[in-house]
Amino acid sequence: MKPIQVGLLGIGTVGSGTFTVLNRNQEEIRRRAGRGIEISMVADLDVERARGIVGDRARVVADAREVIANPEIDIVVELIGGYGIAKTLVLEAIAAGKHVVTANKALLAVHGTEIFEAARAQGVMVAFEAAVAGGIPIIKALREGLTANRIEWVAGIINGTTNFILSEMRSKGLDFAAVLKQAQALGYAEADPTFDIEGVDAAHKATIMSAIAFGVPVQFDKAYVEGITALQAADIRYAEQLGYRIKLLGITKRRDDLATAPGGAGGIELRVHPTLVPSQRLIANVEGAMNAVVVQGDAVGSTLYYGKGAGAEPTASAVIADLVDITRLHTADPDHRVPHLAFQPGSLQDTPILAIDEVVTSFYLRLQVADQAGVLARITGILAEHDISIDAVLQRESAEGEKQTDLIILTHDTVEGRMRAALAQMQALPTVLAPIVRIRKEELK
Amino acid sequence: MKPIQVGLLGIGTVGSGTFTVLNRNQEEIRRRAGRGIEISMVADLDVERARGIVGDRARVVADAREVIANPEIDIVVELIGGYGIAKTLVLEAIAAGKHVVTANKALLAVHGTEIFEAARAQGVMVAFEAAVAGGIPIIKALREGLTANRIEWVAGIINGTTNFILSEMRSKGLDFAAVLKQAQALGYAEADPTFDIEGVDAAHKATIMSAIAFGVPVQFDKAYVEGITALQAADIRYAEQLGYRIKLLGITKRRDDLATAPGGAGGIELRVHPTLVPSQRLIANVEGAMNAVVVQGDAVGSTLYYGKGAGAEPTASAVIADLVDITRLHTADPDHRVPHLAFQPGSLQDTPILAIDEVVTSFYLRLQVADQAGVLARITGILAEHDISIDAVLQRESAEGEKQTDLIILTHDTVEGRMRAALAQMQALPTVLAPIVRIRKEELK
Repeated sequence: MKPIQVGLLGIGTVGSGTFTVLNRNQEEIRRRAGRGIEISMVADLDVERARGIVGDRARVVADAREVIANPEIDIVVELIGGYGIAKTLVLEAIAAGKHVVTANKALLAVHGTEIFEAARAQGVMVAFEAAVAGGIPIIKALREGLTANRIEWVAGIINGTTNFILSEMRSKGLDFAAVLKQAQALGYAEADPTFDIEGVDAAHKATIMSAIAFGVPVQFDKAYVEGITALQAADIRYAEQLGYRIKLLGITKRRDDLATAPGGAGGIELRVHPTLVPSQRLIANVEGAMNAVVVQGDAVGSTLYYGKGAGAEPTASAVIADLVDITRLHTADPDHRVPHLAFQPGSLQDTPILAIDEVVTSFYLRLQVADQAGVLARITGILAEHDISIDAVLQRESAEGEKQTDLIILTHDTVEGRMRAALAQMQALPTVLAPIVRIRKEELK
Repeated sequence: MKPIQVGLLGIGTVGSGTFTVLNRNQEEIRRRAGRGIEISMVADLDVERARGIVGDRARVVADAREVIANPEIDIVVELIGGYGIAKTLVLEAIAAGKHVVTANKALLAVHGTEIFEAARAQGVMVAFEAAVAGGIPIIKALREGLTANRIEWVAGIINGTTNFILSEMRSKGLDFAAVLKQAQALGYAEADPTFDIEGVDAAHKATIMSAIAFGVPVQFDKAYVEGITALQAADIRYAEQLGYRIKLLGITKRRDDLATAPGGAGGIELRVHPTLVPSQRLIANVEGAMNAVVVQGDAVGSTLYYGKGAGAEPTASAVIADLVDITRLHTADPDHRVPHLAFQPGSLQDTPILAIDEVVTSFYLRLQVADQAGVLARITGILAEHDISIDAVLQRESAEGEKQTDLIILTHDTVEGRMRAALAQMQALPTVLAPIVRIRKEELK
């Protein structure tokens, strides 16, 4: 049988990784797929560089539309990135009846609904394993491996740059800014790291996982996003003393409690923020640039998926897995293929994504307070007024003659809006000497 | 569309779990699969008990062949276990043109080749996600998620009973026999725990993973199997001091070094034994009855999959995922479905499974030796004669007046046959006072 013909749009890091791995393992992949898979055409604005990578093994063009228009091409792989031309080209490829593979999380998190609808109408597949957590087959696990389950929540370390920075901050006791510079020097962080350190990249991925886990449309604009730029070494140290590590987690959770309340429609939490996690959890021990995702299902309980979330070959691993999937499945009746968002298109629900004020978590608070009688009573009094109960308190012993100290409080679960009101009241106390640090905490069990 | 009709053979723990989960989540599962999935018939020798579980929601019969003969049934789920009647019924179901789902690792590890060939000839699918690591979608990860990779090795904690026992031995400092009793009382170990503690169950699962990872037939009879019954608390403690934990691992590894040697055909290691693993590895921190599998691929690097490896609902999660897969994929051209053993039937290779003497690992040795001059020199001399190099030595300080001591040696990688020869020579020394303890060690990186 003639090999499946693949056209690559963009041959940067992931594109060259895909080309390399597909060539190196072609025999092994053919034995699995039952048919060869061949990149026969590559489009890249930098034609010379592209030719340097593929040699004479594929035709190189500058215009992506030549690839899309070529009737010999079965699958188009979009590796350009961003919302702009990538979106146009993906939609054009679909309109031309091509199956599409993409690693573009930003595109899918924002325009996924439109793209999947276009693919459905044309009877083609849009595969995107590489869009979340690189080489870890997490989309497949959520969409196929755990189909028996009512998913309760998903929580993941889905941005390697920030996990590398947090690991370094902890192991070396350094503050954010110092580690960022080092990460940039090592190539773990980009020159403009905003998308990573502000949590945007993680939020794109969390949005996609949320849609697949709960059968709702992708809604990136509803995600709550908080990065790691404000994190201080002191809080990582205090967290450690209390038995926790701080990780930037992408979290999405089904809130059945709201559905059972009178008149409740239920709700879904979708958020990215630094999070205290008990040190003994496996995910708390994921170090460096590695990724890991925990999925809680009602039947299977807790499962975890770990691996490299970025890089040329790990991401290529996911892109090629999608190519093999399409090679295997394109003969299936389109209504019987794996649905793009795990649930059949007609079966998506409109469960609302909750505003951050409605989210329920426990909290870590650090207050710099005057070292005088009655301070702790006043603060715990305010928490009690707001019906927030306390799990643990740690007060730093103040040095001889020192007039202030750190007060660390771990709370039990509470609605975020209530905590915000309590924080405003505590912040206004004359004995609270600096902005209060508050970090959310998840037990993940 | 009419729901897919499923017939259950055997409704014990996993069977009732499957029935419960399928009923509880039927709406969610239908939204995913695009079609309802219904257990309409159950065969069990204990008809009364079976009726007690399913009520009037399914027809209960005593004779499994009534299920197989029923033209309404699309998929037969075999949950009887063992090699006997289960094999006959699976082959009969295939012959009757039914797709089959089974959790029976023993059956597949021993008779898989025959069963998959029969399924291929009939154009039906035999799905077995539940056969390895319970609810963890590891078969799917290996067979679909990592198709781009040349798999280098797979190593897993794939028996919950033994991992529970090892965790307890470590945390409580107890010996094997004491913990086994406790595990039996808690229901973590069966009354006859032989299959678990002797490593046979893990070897069944490792055999299946080996076939899928490397594209070779299942060959349980070639697996090397060593259980945990001889493990002593002292060795767990010494391992800890040296930065290692002891886990019962199922390991399968491709030995490309043999393929590149002159006249070499390559080889595959397939073995189950207690193994020292560096404490900082994620898999070393998998505690209690949990399972985890690490897969090393040439493109993706190291990935890990973690979750519950047994129990009614976790295993049901895998059985139902298979039901959904079949519901989705039975319309695909049979030659384009996911192959049973990951590689197309015509593409399996006959790479030999290596005898244990040819396996390469490093070793932990504990020798009870006379506390006198020259002993260490004599022992390290023997290792050097056999070209085995030493990584670390730990000698217990002997108490005042004590005439013997423990000598712990960690070696670098060596061929097992060579180590066996060296051990025989060391054991024969008059200064070695007790049988030498040797445990294999893997760095897993």
